[in-house]
Amino acid sequence: MPRIAFDAMGGDFAPHETVQGAVRAAKEGVEVILVGDEAILSRSLDEAGHAIPVVHAPEVIEMSDDPATAIRTKKNASISVAARLVANGEAEGLVSAGSTGAAMAAAAFIIGRLEGVQRPAIGSIFPTRHVVLDAGANLDCKPEHLLQFGVMGSVLAEIYLGIEMPTVGLLNIGEERGKGRELERAAFRLLEESALNFVGNVEGRDLGRNNVDVLVTDGFTGNVLLKGAEGIAARIMNSLTSELRELQVGADAPGLHRVLSGMAARLDPETYGGAHLVGTKGVVVIGHGSSSRTAIANALRMASDGAAAGLVQRVAAGLSQ
Amino acid sequence: MPRIAFDAMGGDFAPHETVQGAVRAAKEGVEVILVGDEAILSRSLDEAGHAIPVVHAPEVIEMSDDPATAIRTKKNASISVAARLVANGEAEGLVSAGSTGAAMAAAAFIIGRLEGVQRPAIGSIFPTRHVVLDAGANLDCKPEHLLQFGVMGSVLAEIYLGIEMPTVGLLNIGEERGKGRELERAAFRLLEESALNFVGNVEGRDLGRNNVDVLVTDGFTGNVLLKGAEGIAARIMNSLTSELRELQVGADAPGLHRVLSGMAARLDPETYGGAHLVGTKGVVVIGHGSSSRTAIANALRMASDGAAAGLVQRVAAGLSQ
Repeated sequence: MPRIAFDAMGGDFAPHETVQGAVRAAKEGVEVILVGDEAILSRSLDEAGHAIPVVHAPEVIEMSDDPATAIRTKKNASISVAARLVANGEAEGLVSAGSTGAAMAAAAFIIGRLEGVQRPAIGSIFPTRHVVLDAGANLDCKPEHLLQFGVMGSVLAEIYLGIEMPTVGLLNIGEERGKGRELERAAFRLLEESALNFVGNVEGRDLGRNNVDVLVTDGFTGNVLLKGAEGIAARIMNSLTSELRELQVGADAPGLHRVLSGMAARLDPETYGGAHLVGTKGVVVIGHGSSSRTAIANALRMASDGAAAGLVQRVAAGLSQ
Repeated sequence: MPRIAFDAMGGDFAPHETVQGAVRAAKEGVEVILVGDEAILSRSLDEAGHAIPVVHAPEVIEMSDDPATAIRTKKNASISVAARLVANGEAEGLVSAGSTGAAMAAAAFIIGRLEGVQRPAIGSIFPTRHVVLDAGANLDCKPEHLLQFGVMGSVLAEIYLGIEMPTVGLLNIGEERGKGRELERAAFRLLEESALNFVGNVEGRDLGRNNVDVLVTDGFTGNVLLKGAEGIAARIMNSLTSELRELQVGADAPGLHRVLSGMAARLDPETYGGAHLVGTKGVVVIGHGSSSRTAIANALRMASDGAAAGLVQRVAAGLSQ
């Protein structure tokens, strides 16, 4: 069973929710190592009534710290210590709900990039069962980066969506060949010549369909798309719920409530609990700062599943082709 | 009453749906001039039993034509003739559901850019009551372009959403100052110093809120966001509808059907019928190729409302500040 180093001091609701989430994942069989202030974490664990190994880390990186500087100077920050456990082979995965920048810096400087990876990327699994990357790590990309994102995204789709030879599309403003910026035109040619199951240009509206599994794009566009989808989904669900309540529709239709809450749960970013930072020498899952215990438990399970499935090795193999 | 030149030969369902849409708009008081093959249009008008002035244009630009070349060589194409009516002052607005590229080329080369405008932009009014621009005209932008988009978008929000001093946000990957690419960092400074009601960086998820009216971004990002929002909305509504049908929920709750179809109608891109190409010396509305008569009628009304409200003059005034 892979061991997952968990930065238990990161996130808006640390350490209470983080410890509760870790306990839930541990009870489900995930091998968690809690990293953070030992006294604080031990007290929380006592309250939760469950024993999990703790590795002491007295410092904390604040959201206001400059990530790269903080990683260099705060050697004993929980995220740094957790990353070192992965770098030293004492854990196979890292999960944090703290500063995304600090987690990315720790992954880059302490765990290190996989050989052949030009840029680690954030891979996000949308509730629509699409893998989108880069979702925010690299704002300015080169065509070769997008090609590598296609490889990384295919591995994510295989492991987490159970799809063999996932289809890969290039996110663009139209389906025809030749559309897009210089970046897309050059990336199209690289993807076309690759061993990936490339299906050509796809558009934002393909999130409404099942014709493509992996959408590759630069980190700026991917981040906007991800958050835009969240915004629209939240607006629709909130409006429907409040209109139905106002009209007192469905009070006598229990099935309606079930359908709506099922949809809301599927759309909830917490279902997947986090996004993968792919391309480093360990499995790295970065959670929302506002992660609840459910989101934390899901993120820990994702990291464990990824490590068990050989995510890092499969990305390395894909890139060497 | 402003006169609107309508390229009645453009769009997947021309001329039948285009003429029906024009008739509907004309009956509601929009002053439409139909442009296209006179014999074909007269026959369609006879069938519809309503008289609308027709200006003959024997040629048609196909979706497969290169837009800029076609505008130069097909002087008698319906879109070219319609654009000339605006250029000559015989009409104040132009509507087309044909090739977007051809409409943009006709607007640029025949109607011409407004003085001071660096790049005309596509302004899209989302069903969430946000104006987003550029939604696809300019894939690579400079900071000054984004500043001008803020001016154009503010005028659209004033006219179509009835908002005084609309708030303008810069679409970015985080709210903090300094986020984004070099483009966003430089555009932020320009917007901040402008006379616009600038509220800083906003994110895709702000489409779920009402904290900003106008979102400015480059045409690549805007197009992806627009189509992504359409895709997610379609997916949610389709899933909800089919799940409820399957579970036979709501057969006894007529209010439910009303709420769902009301939401679907509000989310329908056809409600607004088209997007504005802002920054030329005439009001230009570009419809979807698949526009139904409803979408066409709405696009014609939008163009008429825009011309009546002095859209072009207000953009010019805003840019000269």
